[in-house]
Amino acid sequence: MTDDIAPPAKPKSHGRLTISASLQPRDLMAPQRVKGAWCARIVTLFPEAFPGTLGLSLTGKALDMGLWALETIDLRPFGIGKHRNVDDTPAGGGAGMVLRADVVAAALAQAQRGAPVDRARWPIVFLSPRGTPFTQARAQSWAAADGLTLLCGRFEGVDQRVIDAYGIEEVSLGDFVMTGGEIAAQAMIDATVRLIPGVLGNHASTEEESFADGLLEHPQFTRPPVWEGREIPPVLLSGNHGEIARWRRAQAEALTAERRPDLWAAWQARKR
Amino acid sequence: MTDDIAPPAKPKSHGRLTISASLQPRDLMAPQRVKGAWCARIVTLFPEAFPGTLGLSLTGKALDMGLWALETIDLRPFGIGKHRNVDDTPAGGGAGMVLRADVVAAALAQAQRGAPVDRARWPIVFLSPRGTPFTQARAQSWAAADGLTLLCGRFEGVDQRVIDAYGIEEVSLGDFVMTGGEIAAQAMIDATVRLIPGVLGNHASTEEESFADGLLEHPQFTRPPVWEGREIPPVLLSGNHGEIARWRRAQAEALTAERRPDLWAAWQARKR
Repeated sequence: MTDDIAPPAKPKSHGRLTISASLQPRDLMAPQRVKGAWCARIVTLFPEAFPGTLGLSLTGKALDMGLWALETIDLRPFGIGKHRNVDDTPAGGGAGMVLRADVVAAALAQAQRGAPVDRARWPIVFLSPRGTPFTQARAQSWAAADGLTLLCGRFEGVDQRVIDAYGIEEVSLGDFVMTGGEIAAQAMIDATVRLIPGVLGNHASTEEESFADGLLEHPQFTRPPVWEGREIPPVLLSGNHGEIARWRRAQAEALTAERRPDLWAAWQARKR
Repeated sequence: MTDDIAPPAKPKSHGRLTISASLQPRDLMAPQRVKGAWCARIVTLFPEAFPGTLGLSLTGKALDMGLWALETIDLRPFGIGKHRNVDDTPAGGGAGMVLRADVVAAALAQAQRGAPVDRARWPIVFLSPRGTPFTQARAQSWAAADGLTLLCGRFEGVDQRVIDAYGIEEVSLGDFVMTGGEIAAQAMIDATVRLIPGVLGNHASTEEESFADGLLEHPQFTRPPVWEGREIPPVLLSGNHGEIARWRRAQAEALTAERRPDLWAAWQARKR
């Protein structure tokens, strides 16, 4: 899968190249597994934001185990002049600052060293509210690639010419505006990395959850059976698996219809 | 605005109560400003994830200046028994684990100390892919509240009874699944905090950007005028402000129609 990928030149790597023996069976610890692991490269003015929350919990354990790797490319050293300026005022006027094409291109050239040029195998993504929405399907497609490069914006955006020249996909976390792309990058990496085999272990199923079948998930209950006068719906304690499955499906359908008319319409269209 | 809010009992606060004199005019430094600052309280199994990226750049500066505050409530000490278990298996069977109603309720009771009981003034939010989508409009509504409490899930979800009992809103970052709610919380807080007066300073306009008028933003360009044979569109260098505005509007409309047929349809419907 990754034999044409040379080790990248990189300022900072969070993926360990050695693995402690106690965590996982021996086949997961083989050096070639680590060498070819899925890799996220982040071009950012704030490399210290990474791994951040990705270094905790399941994604953090998987990072330590070498099941995936994270590399940051600091945009600042590629800046222009004594002050290493990375941005300038928008052509045609307007508020804010725009990242320069030449500065971003130099950082991307470093980020892409050793990565496949086929964008399907290694997408380059700019995180922007102008992009197409990030979805579970996109996380699945990215998890099946060798890795990806994420360009984190600040300010008003990035010069359109470098987006065109590098075949950069613009992807949006959602219909809201953030101060920068770093948290959006972490969100997308989290959603992607958990789909890489071995990362979740037995902690959760990726098949029964929301979006896997196009419906929101049914409500959940657990012990105690009565809490502050509120009971668990009796069907869930009946032991009748068919009844339980029917109840959950009905709940999922009602919830989807109420909260997400868009998903509900799409699901009904597929059923026809 | 906040005179009925007593100081909360809290394990950890990231908002400073003293302010260095060099950063801002004196009116922003008044103690009542800091005392009544917008506050995010996070109930989480990973308090060390905060402030994370929120502690950097503009949101971090604003946090240091006391323009907003961040408090974490560790869920673990509210767990049951010697091992402080916070979750249990789903009633009716299935994969994963569900956060217990009694454990979550105890943590929320602490989180809500001193907060207004009016949910419009202080929403309680569970971050879940089952929720209604987070949008710019919701960020605006939250920024106008006194603060909010965010419950970060892990595992399969949270017992529905505590959602019902506490009037918790379920909000989704988007149509994808993450390992937990912590990064989603950071994304929503970032989008909200940047709308609080004084946080952005002169760094950006919140009026000209994507979603403010229902269209995606036009492409941006900056120096140099020619980069690798690619020119800035001549109209942007023409100095004709009317022509520039028309070109940008046409670009924004074309981009929205191409990438976001949903936003485009809504925008056309409003125009009629």
